[in-house]
Parts: sequence; structure tokens; C-alpha cells
Amino acid sequence: MSAKYFTPLVASLPSTVPFVGPEAQERARGKGFRARIGANESVFGPSPKAIEAMQEAASQVWMYADPENHDLKQALSAYHGVAPQNIVVGEGIDGLLGYVARMFVEPGVKVVTSLGAYPTFNFHVAGYGGELLTVPYKDDREDPEALIDLARSSGARLIYISNPDNPMGTWWGSDVMEEMIANVPDGAVLILDEAYCEFAPEGTVPPLDVTNPKVLRFRTFSKARGMAGARIGYAMGEAELIQGFDKIRNHFGVNRVAQVGALAALGDDAYLAEVIEKVAQARGRISAIAQANGLYALPSASNFVAIDCGKDGDYARAVLAKLIEQDIFVRMPGVAPQDRCIRVSAGLPADLDAFEEALPKALA
Amino acid sequence: MSAKYFTPLVASLPSTVPFVGPEAQERARGKGFRARIGANESVFGPSPKAIEAMQEAASQVWMYADPENHDLKQALSAYHGVAPQNIVVGEGIDGLLGYVARMFVEPGVKVVTSLGAYPTFNFHVAGYGGELLTVPYKDDREDPEALIDLARSSGARLIYISNPDNPMGTWWGSDVMEEMIANVPDGAVLILDEAYCEFAPEGTVPPLDVTNPKVLRFRTFSKARGMAGARIGYAMGEAELIQGFDKIRNHFGVNRVAQVGALAALGDDAYLAEVIEKVAQARGRISAIAQANGLYALPSASNFVAIDCGKDGDYARAVLAKLIEQDIFVRMPGVAPQDRCIRVSAGLPADLDAFEEALPKALA
Repeated sequence: MSAKYFTPLVASLPSTVPFVGPEAQERARGKGFRARIGANESVFGPSPKAIEAMQEAASQVWMYADPENHDLKQALSAYHGVAPQNIVVGEGIDGLLGYVARMFVEPGVKVVTSLGAYPTFNFHVAGYGGELLTVPYKDDREDPEALIDLARSSGARLIYISNPDNPMGTWWGSDVMEEMIANVPDGAVLILDEAYCEFAPEGTVPPLDVTNPKVLRFRTFSKARGMAGARIGYAMGEAELIQGFDKIRNHFGVNRVAQVGALAALGDDAYLAEVIEKVAQARGRISAIAQANGLYALPSASNFVAIDCGKDGDYARAVLAKLIEQDIFVRMPGVAPQDRCIRVSAGLPADLDAFEEALPKALA
Repeated sequence: MSAKYFTPLVASLPSTVPFVGPEAQERARGKGFRARIGANESVFGPSPKAIEAMQEAASQVWMYADPENHDLKQALSAYHGVAPQNIVVGEGIDGLLGYVARMFVEPGVKVVTSLGAYPTFNFHVAGYGGELLTVPYKDDREDPEALIDLARSSGARLIYISNPDNPMGTWWGSDVMEEMIANVPDGAVLILDEAYCEFAPEGTVPPLDVTNPKVLRFRTFSKARGMAGARIGYAMGEAELIQGFDKIRNHFGVNRVAQVGALAALGDDAYLAEVIEKVAQARGRISAIAQANGLYALPSASNFVAIDCGKDGDYARAVLAKLIEQDIFVRMPGVAPQDRCIRVSAGLPADLDAFEEALPKALA
């Protein structure tokens, strides 16, 4: 019973996980899914150039990756027009959010987020003993003004927002985000999660300003670049903040194959454009399927669509269960009133055929 | 200057890194190494079956890996004869050591290790505010009895030992390790790092006993399995201790390609046996090269050899510098008196040809 020697904080943590994976559901069900459109993965896959680079790198995996992520940081530096010292590469946004929590959060520290926003961020904040304060969504969008107000009144150290938002797919334009950034109170840092920004319309992403010490921008190769399983993402911000990651990160933590793949993926914006176009088509089709079933699909700037099932959370959960019964892997928001929706990720035509066939039966 | 809002602990941490990678050295030198035999990587590479599996998985990397690592844990369970609930899979031993530090260490907690043992473990302990207490090596071996004594007298919560040892390559037999495990004081957990155990002679690895809550055993695919860049390893121990990892780990943190590769690698013990044999031959050749230059090579149960340069640390550092000047990447122990040695990893014949040619010049 050495577990009694865990730190009081770790001992106090529940044994919850942010998400149950589809594989665990498949094992519990005793059969596979025919459409995997629940985790906002990119069914369109990574760039063929990235695949080729990763295949070539497979035999080189006996070598640790460069712990400085030098080549990738140089490429990201050129891509975004910010200096390498303003970039940290890590094990996906999830991994980087864990580091951020560790950098800023200890028992007694307050953190502001939206009620029903990204559970993995909450998991990390709770894991370091932070106190989560939440603001409700407003008309299915995160509410920048209310987040800022609560941060100011509570003295929060971190403020989390995703733009475009997950799980609703809604978004704010650059003007609103710029105003939010300008209003971050002293003593707080805005965690701006832009995992889905490549899918958003022009005018969504506020300008990068790495001289501003009040905001950290998070990007990933998991979504539009199709490399969720590679676990590679990055954050951009003021150099001194970025250096904080180096004090604590697992320096040899990035997978070498992922590093090579990300570099190749970054060099293939033509493929990225194709994916963005295919995702837009898939969103359109998901919306059309919803509409054909008398449901409203929320506008989305991401690679998924929230479908309002028109009743309460219990109803949407029942619809979700009926879709899963029909071997369609989808997820849904966790809290009311957003939990009146189910969330469907962009799929291949065959995935959406399956969804189209299953949805009326789920609603019946 | 939001860095002033770091937690006091993180703010107090130095900007050190456990290791500088060979790539950084190459950039600083402006030229590449001709032999990469400094990081105890396996130049023999992963199993061809693992390479093939990883190449096939590259196009599937759009999917997150199974966060429960179910299939790999099942395979490890069968391989080691322990239940899946006694196994946690993580981002290499480095990543798992970070989790262990987080589980057990907070400011004021004492941790015992050997002076000059694994720097990454020390990095993680310091990163959580732990107080490191050290025991000197004794005749170039870690000193189990002294480690236990210091843990008992200091009330340490963690005790670290690697067997076989890194950076010296020395080892203790199963009997000594069993005695050490039996003597772990109440309130302490032994972190037994067995990264190199596949290379050790029979009778080195003590029996696995996952009912004992006082020891956690760490294994990796980075060394004998040739997958350092994949970042995948595991720990085995009492179920309640193992559950602690689940409270804090980055659940989706393992790379999907690594997961698939590890599973394939685990199924190819014939290849593992070949690697072990090649490593033994390489160790023999490194020892012969040392001897031909009038130097003593320490016996090694790992995939590297510590060569005693016969004088003090300054001399060995000069020899190391002269090897690096000749494009041979090697490393050396960090503290006296072990720093009279340089550490040479098993290489391909061409790597060792280069080392053989360079060493006399480095000593001249």
C-alpha cells in the first residue's frame, strides 16, 4: 500500500480520464465501428509527403529525436514569421497544456474556462490542484467578455478559450479575439487553443504578437494536418514564457517519426488546402443530413459539426447511444445546454453514408 | 513578463537540460558525426517486423492511439506473466519517471540516488521540488546497501537504482537486488530502472513480484528493442501504484506508430537475441580497442562500455573532446571518480573502426 505515500494532491485526485477512446468502446461492445467520426480526427489522413517521410524515418527510430526540435522550430519560425525562441514543440497540445498547468497552477490558483470546454485542460488544471471557475456558453459560443470579467474579479492566473471552439464548432472573428487579448488582466495569461484554426474562415485568427506576455497560442499537427496519433503540437508566445517550458518539459519526449512527419506536413500546404476543402464539403453534407432529419446543424469553423437534436440532454444522449448501437462512433458535449447536441466529425463519403443511414433510425 | 506568474517552484528551477543532443553538437560544430555511439542507442535498429508495422501504421496516424494501450498491455502481460493492471505504458522511461516524481515528490520530500546516476531522473525530482540525496558509487557500482541505509536514515520517499547501471555498465546479480528490495524501508518506493536488463547475463534480473508495493520496475523499447526515438516504455508494479499513473498521465500521450511498433517488436525475440549477440560482440571489440591503447575497459552488462582513461576527469574530458573533434560522438560520466572514464555505446563495425582509428590520436 505504498500508494499512501503519494503526495496529498495526487492522492486526492479522482481516477477519471478526460475521454474514453473508441477502441475501449469497441472492446466493450465486442465489435468495431464502421464510421470513426467522433474524435475530430482527420479521416483524410496526413499529407502523402508526411507519410513517406514517416515511413522512411521508421528504420531510424533507434535514434532519439533532437530534443531541441531545431529543424521543426526553424520551419515553424519561417512559416509563422516568429523567432524560434518564441516556439516550443511538444507532445501535442494535450502535452503542452499539461506543462502550462504545471508552470502556472498550484493549489489555490484559479483558472477560468467555459463550462463544457476542453476536458483535458481541466484534467491538467485539477491535476496540479488548481481551482476551475467556469463561465457558461452564450448562444453556443464561448463568451470572451465574461471569461475576462471572471478572470479579473477572481484574480485567475489562466484563462482558457478555444477558437474555433470545441465541442460546438462556433468561433469569433479576429476583432473579438484581439479585444479579448487586449483585456487580459494583469497577472493572467490567456491560453488560446487554436487547434482547429486552419478550418476557420479568413479573419478568424488574430495576428501573432509574441511580444505580448499575456497570451500563449496553441497549434497542432493533430487536426488539419491529420497526425493526431503522432502527438506533436506547438505553442507560440513571449520568449520568457516559452523558456518556462524548457525548465520542465520532457526534453527527449517528442517522437522522432512525428518530428520528421510534422516537418514534411508543414511543407505541404497544397495538401492542407485539399483537406480544408474536403472538410468543408463534409460539414456541408453533415448539415444537410441533419436538415433532412428535421434537425438544426450549427455553423462550424472546425472539422466537425454540432447537431442540435432539438430537445434536452437526455434525448441527445439517447440519440448518441442509438448511433453507437449502429456502429457509428460520435461524441457529444458534456454539459447543458450544449448537451442537446451531438458532435459529428468530418468523415469520408462512406462514413457519412453510414451516418446518413443511421441517423433516422436513431431518431425514430 | 508573465513569467513572474510561474509557480514559485517553477520560477526557481534553472534552465538546465539533462542532456545536450548530438544534433545540437553537430550544429555547433558545423559538421556531422561519423559515428553516433554516445547515447546508448541501438545502432542495430528495431526489428524488421517493427519497422514494417510502423511503416504500415504511418498512414493511420490520423487516429489517436488507444489511450488504454490495451493491446500492448495484453502482450506485455503475457510476456512477463503479470496482469495488465500491474502495467502502465508511457512515453519512454523518461516520461514515466516524470510521472513518478509527480506522484511522490513535493517540496520537502527526500529522494535517494547515486552520485552520477541518471540525470533525467534528477531533473524530474528537482522539477517537483524534491531534495536529492546521493550516495557515492563504490568500485564503479551503485551501492544498494548504502542507498537503503541513506533512505532509512533520511526518511526518503523514493530510491533510484539502475541495474545494469548507466553510465558505468556495472551490475548486481539478482540475489543482491532481491535483498535490496526486501530492505526498502517503510514509506519508500524503489525505482528500479532496468532499461538495459536485456543485455545482462542470466541471473541479473530479480523475479517480478507485483504484490510488493515497495518497488516499481521500469522497462523500455528504447534500448535492446532499438526504438529510442519512438518514446515508449512501461513500468510494472502493484496495481494501486500503477493506478496512480492513470490519475495524472497524459492519457493520449503515446504515439500510435510507437504503440504498433512496440507490439511488433515484442513479438520478435529472435531479432532481440541477434541484437544482444551483436552488442556483446561490439562490447568485446570496444574492450579490445581500449586494451590495445593501454586502457582498462570496465565489464559491462549493457549496450555500452565505460573505458577508464587511467587519469582524472580533466584528462578524460580532454580525450572525449579529441574524439568529438574527430567526429566520434561519445559521452562520459559527469562526476568523479567515474569521470575518469569515457562511455562508448555498441556500434556497427564501421562505427567501431572509426573509434579504433580515432582513439590513439585522442590519447596522443
